[in-house]
Amino acid sequence: MNPPNKDKLKIDFRIWIFNNGEKLFGKGRVELLEKINKSGSIANAAKEMNMSYRQAWQMVNEMNKRSNHPLVEKQLGGKNGGGAILTQAGKSAINKFNELEKRINAVIVEETKKLEL
Amino acid sequence: MNPPNKDKLKIDFRIWIFNNGEKLFGKGRVELLEKINKSGSIANAAKEMNMSYRQAWQMVNEMNKRSNHPLVEKQLGGKNGGGAILTQAGKSAINKFNELEKRINAVIVEETKKLEL
Repeated sequence: MNPPNKDKLKIDFRIWIFNNGEKLFGKGRVELLEKINKSGSIANAAKEMNMSYRQAWQMVNEMNKRSNHPLVEKQLGGKNGGGAILTQAGKSAINKFNELEKRINAVIVEETKKLEL
Repeated sequence: MNPPNKDKLKIDFRIWIFNNGEKLFGKGRVELLEKINKSGSIANAAKEMNMSYRQAWQMVNEMNKRSNHPLVEKQLGGKNGGGAILTQAGKSAINKFNELEKRINAVIVEETKKLEL
């Protein structure tokens, strides 16, 4: 039988990626990129995340500037001022962040099993 | 030669330990315990962390309640209402959190070397 406290202890973590000392990605930003990718629109992605369009647009703008390659491209025309699509670099960044997070999570799961306080 | 962006990308992380779904430790709380251990006083530790005594005391109280064993013991008497010392469980928790953080950091350092966006 395990001591009862072992099952109740949990380790949580967050990761962020910085470029040149400036925050480039965290969980929220990557989720925003994923939602833009799915919906093809910054406005729709913002709505799904309960953010204002302005907030979402500013985040996208910041990520585009701080990244070595543009991540999101706005498309002109259409209603709501056109949609937005992810570049290859944008799609690749989502995958790399999520894979990184999975690997760290696997380490955390093992550490949690061993944890006793 | 490495591509220039490789040297500028950095992964940052934070970890937290929860017990029964409630936050038990994070970097700040462990730092507070360390400062209590060194100074023998919640008041002095609070000052060093630019916290009010009340805030520090509440954090300590919360940790004591949420932990399976008390971490900090208040000592009665003396000026400022007496000091505070860490129990063995308190000292052990500091070490375990710091060692855990170091192991995760080692993983993050390796991930950072491999990271390309």
